[in-house]
Amino acid sequence: MRTLGLNTLFGTRRTKELLHVNPTIIPHREEAREVKAYVYDYDAASLEEHEFNEVEPCFRFRHSNRISWINVDGLRKTDVETVCDNYGIHGLLVEDILSIHQRPKMDEVEGVLFCLLNMLYFNETNGTVEQEQISIVLGKDFVISFQEDASRDVFNPLRERLRITSSKIRQRSADYLCYAMLDLIVDNYFLVMEKLGERIEELEEQVIRNTNNRALARISALRKELIVLKRNIAPVRDLLNGIIRSESELLDDRTTKYFKDVYDHVMQAFDLSENYRDVMVNMQDLYINNVNLRMNEVMKVMAIVTCLLAPATVIGGIFGMNFEKIPYLHNDYGFFIAVAVMLVIPVYMLWIFRKRGWF
Amino acid sequence: MRTLGLNTLFGTRRTKELLHVNPTIIPHREEAREVKAYVYDYDAASLEEHEFNEVEPCFRFRHSNRISWINVDGLRKTDVETVCDNYGIHGLLVEDILSIHQRPKMDEVEGVLFCLLNMLYFNETNGTVEQEQISIVLGKDFVISFQEDASRDVFNPLRERLRITSSKIRQRSADYLCYAMLDLIVDNYFLVMEKLGERIEELEEQVIRNTNNRALARISALRKELIVLKRNIAPVRDLLNGIIRSESELLDDRTTKYFKDVYDHVMQAFDLSENYRDVMVNMQDLYINNVNLRMNEVMKVMAIVTCLLAPATVIGGIFGMNFEKIPYLHNDYGFFIAVAVMLVIPVYMLWIFRKRGWF
Amino acid sequence: MRTLGLNTLFGTRRTKELLHVNPTIIPHREEAREVKAYVYDYDAASLEEHEFNEVEPCFRFRHSNRISWINVDGLRKTDVETVCDNYGIHGLLVEDILSIHQRPKMDEVEGVLFCLLNMLYFNETNGTVEQEQISIVLGKDFVISFQEDASRDVFNPLRERLRITSSKIRQRSADYLCYAMLDLIVDNYFLVMEKLGERIEELEEQVIRNTNNRALARISALRKELIVLKRNIAPVRDLLNGIIRSESELLDDRTTKYFKDVYDHVMQAFDLSENYRDVMVNMQDLYINNVNLRMNEVMKVMAIVTCLLAPATVIGGIFGMNFEKIPYLHNDYGFFIAVAVMLVIPVYMLWIFRKRGWF
Amino acid sequence: MRTLGLNTLFGTRRTKELLHVNPTIIPHREEAREVKAYVYDYDAASLEEHEFNEVEPCFRFRHSNRISWINVDGLRKTDVETVCDNYGIHGLLVEDILSIHQRPKMDEVEGVLFCLLNMLYFNETNGTVEQEQISIVLGKDFVISFQEDASRDVFNPLRERLRITSSKIRQRSADYLCYAMLDLIVDNYFLVMEKLGERIEELEEQVIRNTNNRALARISALRKELIVLKRNIAPVRDLLNGIIRSESELLDDRTTKYFKDVYDHVMQAFDLSENYRDVMVNMQDLYINNVNLRMNEVMKVMAIVTCLLAPATVIGGIFGMNFEKIPYLHNDYGFFIAVAVMLVIPVYMLWIFRKRGWF
Amino acid sequence: MRTLGLNTLFGTRRTKELLHVNPTIIPHREEAREVKAYVYDYDAASLEEHEFNEVEPCFRFRHSNRISWINVDGLRKTDVETVCDNYGIHGLLVEDILSIHQRPKMDEVEGVLFCLLNMLYFNETNGTVEQEQISIVLGKDFVISFQEDASRDVFNPLRERLRITSSKIRQRSADYLCYAMLDLIVDNYFLVMEKLGERIEELEEQVIRNTNNRALARISALRKELIVLKRNIAPVRDLLNGIIRSESELLDDRTTKYFKDVYDHVMQAFDLSENYRDVMVNMQDLYINNVNLRMNEVMKVMAIVTCLLAPATVIGGIFGMNFEKIPYLHNDYGFFIAVAVMLVIPVYMLWIFRKRGWF
Repeated sequence: MRTLGLNTLFGTRRTKELLHVNPTIIPHREEAREVKAYVYDYDAASLEEHEFNEVEPCFRFRHSNRISWINVDGLRKTDVETVCDNYGIHGLLVEDILSIHQRPKMDEVEGVLFCLLNMLYFNETNGTVEQEQISIVLGKDFVISFQEDASRDVFNPLRERLRITSSKIRQRSADYLCYAMLDLIVDNYFLVMEKLGERIEELEEQVIRNTNNRALARISALRKELIVLKRNIAPVRDLLNGIIRSESELLDDRTTKYFKDVYDHVMQAFDLSENYRDVMVNMQDLYINNVNLRMNEVMKVMAIVTCLLAPATVIGGIFGMNFEKIPYLHNDYGFFIAVAVMLVIPVYMLWIFRKRGWF
Repeated sequence: MRTLGLNTLFGTRRTKELLHVNPTIIPHREEAREVKAYVYDYDAASLEEHEFNEVEPCFRFRHSNRISWINVDGLRKTDVETVCDNYGIHGLLVEDILSIHQRPKMDEVEGVLFCLLNMLYFNETNGTVEQEQISIVLGKDFVISFQEDASRDVFNPLRERLRITSSKIRQRSADYLCYAMLDLIVDNYFLVMEKLGERIEELEEQVIRNTNNRALARISALRKELIVLKRNIAPVRDLLNGIIRSESELLDDRTTKYFKDVYDHVMQAFDLSENYRDVMVNMQDLYINNVNLRMNEVMKVMAIVTCLLAPATVIGGIFGMNFEKIPYLHNDYGFFIAVAVMLVIPVYMLWIFRKRGWF
Repeated sequence: MRTLGLNTLFGTRRTKELLHVNPTIIPHREEAREVKAYVYDYDAASLEEHEFNEVEPCFRFRHSNRISWINVDGLRKTDVETVCDNYGIHGLLVEDILSIHQRPKMDEVEGVLFCLLNMLYFNETNGTVEQEQISIVLGKDFVISFQEDASRDVFNPLRERLRITSSKIRQRSADYLCYAMLDLIVDNYFLVMEKLGERIEELEEQVIRNTNNRALARISALRKELIVLKRNIAPVRDLLNGIIRSESELLDDRTTKYFKDVYDHVMQAFDLSENYRDVMVNMQDLYINNVNLRMNEVMKVMAIVTCLLAPATVIGGIFGMNFEKIPYLHNDYGFFIAVAVMLVIPVYMLWIFRKRGWF
Repeated sequence: MRTLGLNTLFGTRRTKELLHVNPTIIPHREEAREVKAYVYDYDAASLEEHEFNEVEPCFRFRHSNRISWINVDGLRKTDVETVCDNYGIHGLLVEDILSIHQRPKMDEVEGVLFCLLNMLYFNETNGTVEQEQISIVLGKDFVISFQEDASRDVFNPLRERLRITSSKIRQRSADYLCYAMLDLIVDNYFLVMEKLGERIEELEEQVIRNTNNRALARISALRKELIVLKRNIAPVRDLLNGIIRSESELLDDRTTKYFKDVYDHVMQAFDLSENYRDVMVNMQDLYINNVNLRMNEVMKVMAIVTCLLAPATVIGGIFGMNFEKIPYLHNDYGFFIAVAVMLVIPVYMLWIFRKRGWF
Repeated sequence: MRTLGLNTLFGTRRTKELLHVNPTIIPHREEAREVKAYVYDYDAASLEEHEFNEVEPCFRFRHSNRISWINVDGLRKTDVETVCDNYGIHGLLVEDILSIHQRPKMDEVEGVLFCLLNMLYFNETNGTVEQEQISIVLGKDFVISFQEDASRDVFNPLRERLRITSSKIRQRSADYLCYAMLDLIVDNYFLVMEKLGERIEELEEQVIRNTNNRALARISALRKELIVLKRNIAPVRDLLNGIIRSESELLDDRTTKYFKDVYDHVMQAFDLSENYRDVMVNMQDLYINNVNLRMNEVMKVMAIVTCLLAPATVIGGIFGMNFEKIPYLHNDYGFFIAVAVMLVIPVYMLWIFRKRGWF
């Protein structure tokens, strides 16, 4: 059927992505072709910055007495394992870092605080929300972050702030860096939602202006993106709650209020995504009502035309019969009387319809 | 399509406002053109009242040994920062005060109790609920309030009560002033809901009286306003809960029951907004049923006319054929018999319809 | 449109009542024209009973060393204030007592236990649930109750029981009297629900028997009454929970089980109101299905008539053309063959429809 | 309207039963005509079994030093009061035992543990779930059970097990007997659900096979029975939870795990009833879709017939006009050309419809 | 009715399976024809592996001082009882192991930790989710697992890992083996969901491409499978929660984080099944909209044809009457004028329809 103007191939491919799951027991994760490791070894006084194409050179910063942030772009099983071995990170976390489509979560395992969540991007081309899995490991004097995609530069703003000697990040301990990363990721959710919001507005305008057949398909497509949003935002609340309630020694009391602030933002993002859902439901009701009203209009036109036909057909049929004796047939004005009746009856019917409020 | 009689531009602009978000990382807040600072420095015995066009003169009341209420109308980044610096308010709160479309919340940061919520107004012109962000900082012997809009006078009734020496506000400590402000804001919600309620009643009357095509569009518009209400009221419950459960030294035990009273009002506002939603759903069902009933009426008219046509067409067709030998053609009463049958059959059909309860 | 046979004025007036709110800051409560104060001063041994037209004479029972129940019918601001002043009841409670459309709640303020809830009545005339606000103040050796309406005699059964020397009320302390009042009010909910239930049954019978156009309007009206029920019953659960969990010295341990019993009744009333809602949803589905089935029946009749017309029109049209050479025109049986075909085809079509299960 | 093939009288009578409430203040409970009291006085070694037509003879087992189970079939106010007086059971429980349509609940009052719940039976004749109220009072060395209906033998399997000396019931204390009774009642829920499940399956088969008009009425009837189930099962969870968490001395620690087992069964029954609800919603969607598809089929037939008529009517009309000069009228093949066009156009239209996927 | 292209017998048989319940009091479980017992008796140093066709030979490993895993494939009442007697497992657990369609649950009874849950398989042939009940009993130094189906080899991967001396299972105590089993079962859920997801995608493609009448029946069938999923996954959350919070001595603190990991997976499976549900709802809305759009298209064609007929019928009727005096009848161009009007009016009507956006 051609009435649904949606690229069918795209629609189902998106569903495929949505429904795809990866049992951690068999990780089909494709190995990254290249890996970049950035090291920022800093304290309030000094900052050392390095970029490597392998992970091994990072290990010498382990005992630098400064805070070291190691950012690994691109995931290769061996690299992740080497890094984790070196920093004493539990094997279960290695599995989590390498897993695909994980649910955002936090964990405290053997003196290390682990956060896994997704950076969201809005793909303008096909209007989808894309996600990149980010793992953050906060340890004593170090933060290690793993990103899936070497080509995207998520933490750029952080780098800028690190280079400024007077910035708060430089003054504080490693947990503040961890906060700054989470804050960056969560604030990015709003940018994605803003973009999605624009699509929704656009669609609503189309629904109000003109009921094109594709509207529901588009609503349906947008609802899928809202599922992605919800799936990513809702568990982040628990993640942050976990951090706030954690009694880990890695977390300074002074930093708690910052995590609370991020929590407030996530709550707001969550509320907003609920609002989006309400607006979508609202829009769908409006659209379906439009379709029904249009149907009603068609029915009314048919009713009118049917009424117009009625007397003409009946009278035409009566005087078109071939009986020998039909009254008025030979009357000079018979024809005109008949035609007049043909006209008067539908006019009268239309007048009744009007009175009943059908137009 | 012209069937939706809604000003399309307005409809989508409202959605835009609803869905708009502001990641705190990039506050696009427009600077206020003018700022007014009101100082009320009072104790049970005396009251000093000042109005300034800048915030700096307020600072000398800091150590007045009386309670000072500083109300800043109009938000300018530098002003907010100066005030907060001067009163030792944490930088995160400065960000919150300057943010846009924040979720109502309360926070206790470094010896200060912070409330952020929205004053609601009902815009009679376009039937929308407008919000003005209000930040209240309760400290030791001072309350600082920030309002977005210098032109609106939210706290007027409070000023009146402050000027009366015997009023409770004058007798009590700063937390009672804070209570009075929250009470004023929450009570205002009811005024907004009353106005919204009138719109709903008006619309319901239209829905019951006459199914105009615009009803669902209007229901849809009102539902958006209910989203605004819900978004503002629901988190205020948490805000007040937070205050009631707080163990801050700023809050006198005697004041708790007042905050509980405000909490009861918020609960009532929340219940009421749920009722509004139920009434709207109810109304929408009624409207859609009306549309369907009207459709049915059209169908019934078509059915009747179709039945009227049926025998005329068949008999007319039969005796209109040009066969040479057709019985009754030459009978004197043939025509009248045919016409009689044409009349009798639809009358009989109508009688059946009536019996089946179609009219 | 005339299809909705609801008294339009009544429908929207009811919505107005439902949506009406009263911000406590501006209580528009109309003063009662007359006030009646009943005093029951009793202990296990004796009972003194008085009726006054003003509240002042009641005050002398304050220190009677017996339990005194003061029941004030009709609310006048000055009276309430005088009574509360005299019995040391906090000003906030005065506001609550005088408020309109308050949410049921309980509060413990300064040695006094305060309950506010609504007595429900079923107005048989227009099928609505009416409510009368009742405030009960339980203090040390006294219970004060305030009723809005002087003409209704809510607590009559209690009076009877008080006059019986051996009754439990006489043996126990003031909290038992308070229990007896709550019990009376809650049991009355069931009477109201019973009446409402009868209306629902009546309506269901109408829906099942005959789909009149007014059914949905009536369902809609009943749903409004269910909103009233829900609004009144749900918070009473919290009220009773609050009493059961209260550690007030006013409440005897032996009385707790009675309050638990009332709580069970409220739970049952709440469950039942949920059932009502389910039954209503059920009924609405049934009604809408009826409307659709009826529509289908109309469509089927039209389909049949259309099929009946089809061959007659086509054949009549063919042999009614004025061509010079038309086969069979001069055949003696031509007319009869044509008519036979006109009859056979619709009969065949009807047979097909029957086979497809359309009748 | 005759399209709803439901016995109207039955449908609404069932609603009446569902919505019926009985405020405990006025118990209209009809007195049982006969009462049967069974006494089982047992310990591990011996069992004494008696059947009486009055309750008084049971009282001598009160101090038998053995466990005594008194089962009263048929409720008479005086009997219940006598029994309770004799065994020191609180008056509130007497009211509960005599109440009608009570919500299942448990209570600990003055050294006695009280359970009230309903035995469910499936009435095969009219497909309804019937309930019989059972009250169980567990005291020190005695269990008293009250049943509404003297004719039904709920606890028969228990009697069998009691007579076996080696059975667990005989070895354990009174709480185990109480467990055995609850277990019996809850397990019976599954039998009722199994029967109800069969009705649902039957109905689903009818819905899938043939969309008869009665399906929704039957779905509606079954949904009412699900309300009965839900109303009975959900509160039993709380009842058992209350027993498990109770710290009553009447409950042996060793018996707790048995009550947990019953709790698991109730949870399962609850889950299952949720599944039933889901299946019903599913079925209703399917049914409504069937109705719509059938409507569509009717519409398609009408569309086809309309299209068939179109050219015949137009061409027949054109060449049936009595103008003097009409082309082709005198042509030998004029008639055949006209008829051919009459045939070709509908065939072409059908071909288009087919291509659009309408058949 | 033949429009629902579902194998009716299969559809209802599946419902039967879904709704089937088995009160534990009467277990109709069919006895397995053959039983296989596998024993793995291991510690870090050595592994003994046996396969028996009866359970008795397993008992000698009871006191082997190594960890013994006894896996019983195929359930026979006597076998289960013998095993449990021998290992001191409580009789209630025997009942649970033998029960059918149990709700997943965990229990700690007399020094033993008991888990009951279902292994899920996807039956490719008829697209259903099949379940096999697995009971796991964790004791001091032993794990006993019971499987319903002797033909399926659930724990194969575990066996492989057991045979590797350096594997973690071999190094750890019995609770780790228990974890490994739960992990295996839960990870298998994802495989089943992946398969189900593929069916959903397939169906969505069909819904988008072509609205075949069977789509809703298929959606309905898939929804039933989602019920199975939900029923199995949701209680497993509680099961794992119970283990994590358990303070049993059987559980090593080091193993807790592994159980937490499984818990995270179950949460993810649960979230995913919610997404499935959302996608299905989405799809159903899309499908129903398709049906409506198609209906609208049919209506539009009928409206067009009706309009085409209108002038032809009226004019043909007028000039087909047999009056003696009809104007233009003798005019040379009369016929052509009439036909022209017959053509012009429908063209004009179509132009209006087009302008109203009907095509």
